Amino acid sequence: MDFPAELKRLSSEVERGIDLYLPPASTPPGRLHEAMRYSLQAGGKRLRPVLVLATARLFPPQSPSPDPLAAAVAIECLHTYSLIHDDLPCMDNDDLRRGRPTAHRQFDEATALLAGDALLTHAFALLATAYASNPSLAHALVSELADASGSRRLIGGQMADLLAEKNERITAADLEFIHLSKTAAMIEAAMVLGGLIASADESAIATLRRAGRHLGLAFQIRDDVLDATADSATLGKTAGKDAKAGKTTFVKLHGLEESQRLARAQSDAARDAVRELRGDRGFLLALIDSMSTRAR
Amino acid sequence: MDFPAELKRLSSEVERGIDLYLPPASTPPGRLHEAMRYSLQAGGKRLRPVLVLATARLFPPQSPSPDPLAAAVAIECLHTYSLIHDDLPCMDNDDLRRGRPTAHRQFDEATALLAGDALLTHAFALLATAYASNPSLAHALVSELADASGSRRLIGGQMADLLAEKNERITAADLEFIHLSKTAAMIEAAMVLGGLIASADESAIATLRRAGRHLGLAFQIRDDVLDATADSATLGKTAGKDAKAGKTTFVKLHGLEESQRLARAQSDAARDAVRELRGDRGFLLALIDSMSTRAR
Repeated sequence: MDFPAELKRLSSEVERGIDLYLPPASTPPGRLHEAMRYSLQAGGKRLRPVLVLATARLFPPQSPSPDPLAAAVAIECLHTYSLIHDDLPCMDNDDLRRGRPTAHRQFDEATALLAGDALLTHAFALLATAYASNPSLAHALVSELADASGSRRLIGGQMADLLAEKNERITAADLEFIHLSKTAAMIEAAMVLGGLIASADESAIATLRRAGRHLGLAFQIRDDVLDATADSATLGKTAGKDAKAGKTTFVKLHGLEESQRLARAQSDAARDAVRELRGDRGFLLALIDSMSTRAR
Repeated sequence: MDFPAELKRLSSEVERGIDLYLPPASTPPGRLHEAMRYSLQAGGKRLRPVLVLATARLFPPQSPSPDPLAAAVAIECLHTYSLIHDDLPCMDNDDLRRGRPTAHRQFDEATALLAGDALLTHAFALLATAYASNPSLAHALVSELADASGSRRLIGGQMADLLAEKNERITAADLEFIHLSKTAAMIEAAMVLGGLIASADESAIATLRRAGRHLGLAFQIRDDVLDATADSATLGKTAGKDAKAGKTTFVKLHGLEESQRLARAQSDAARDAVRELRGDRGFLLALIDSMSTRAR
């Protein structure tokens, strides 16, 4: 398997899906729909939607086989909303995202706020409409995404992260809660959505959940390492901002070398979980590899 | 029927539902869940959730009859999120809501932003979990709510409203688009959710949609009239802020008397639609009356 070519193919598929499943920029009010598309089409790694597509095809095709593309776009809408709101002045106050002005810099704060709200809402609308012919599946997808992105997980992790900035005594357990919630929850959800669409059985869903959790932690630890070691031009976002904000990161808590070892251990655990599944796992294993050794 | 007593009974039922269906304030992170409850428990008219309950019982009970209470709470979560975000400094910058400090004044901007996000997400999570035993119903409810609150309707209306502040040449059609989207969409959704839970047929759902649309317009025109004529103490929110913000309102566009006539015409149309339905319509008709003649 040619991993870079296959990754490129899946990413292009995601780009096509985004264009297909978002309201046209000309839909009134135009400014809102332009801002939604501006943020969603800013590129990025497309990790979560690619995970949905790659996980779905691990399993034997059903008849009829629901297309995982809408779910892939839904999770990218949700991820993008969380970035738009996270970049706002009252949160991280960031000017740069994926090498371009953040939404509130390109438009204004109110438009960015509403575009984030609209992308969050659109994620659920899209799952409900695209899988309407299979209401049980649509319901399972909505449940999974709403749980992963709710006040106990994604949003809870962002709140805990903010609170941790003002707290000097963050423990390893606190930090793991933040990262499990803020990052791992959505990566886990991406793999579970892929499995649900492919009618994976309960045991396979549990395995995917475990794989996603480890992969999410590996990904976030790698993020901390990169924030401490890379420059803004390479990252496409402001580097060193964790240290500047006084944030407790894996690097601050465990040191650089131990953080790198922890990231490897988590990605090994993710790979072990994926190996428990049948199907052609080559691409998914290579993706896990690339995510935990990435340079940006 | 004793309308005030019945309204009080249904409102208390909503309060009970809010307490039941929201995560406890002690759920980590506590500050986030406190803020969600603070805004949701600030009182208010509970119009939308009461409409869900009152509409559901217009129809003959099914076996099993799903409880409309969770859907009532979900729509109040959604409405409350829209108020929290609308009050933020980058939007209306309001300090007072229902006679109490707004969420960002009571907590801080970041907490208010995240509490709004969390209430929006919780609305969908709640529909998905509370109606899980009937996935088709859960799916229909999620579809309806996501559509009403999306970028073409609720959020679109808020964006159009913001853009209209900077525009001197707002037409009656523009203003109707804003009010249909910003206010009527959710009131319509409340009645439709009630109908869906009671297994109303397609024709009844269409009638409820029409009733909700007229009621929503009546309600918003009344809001404009009150903003121009009442004081902050009576309203429990800042009065006269539309004029201050240079907003185009029904009163500005049509004058006070004609606005009052328009509100009456819309509430008459809502009552006519409700009268097309069978069942005990007394409470719903009285509710429409009270909403279009309310003093706050």
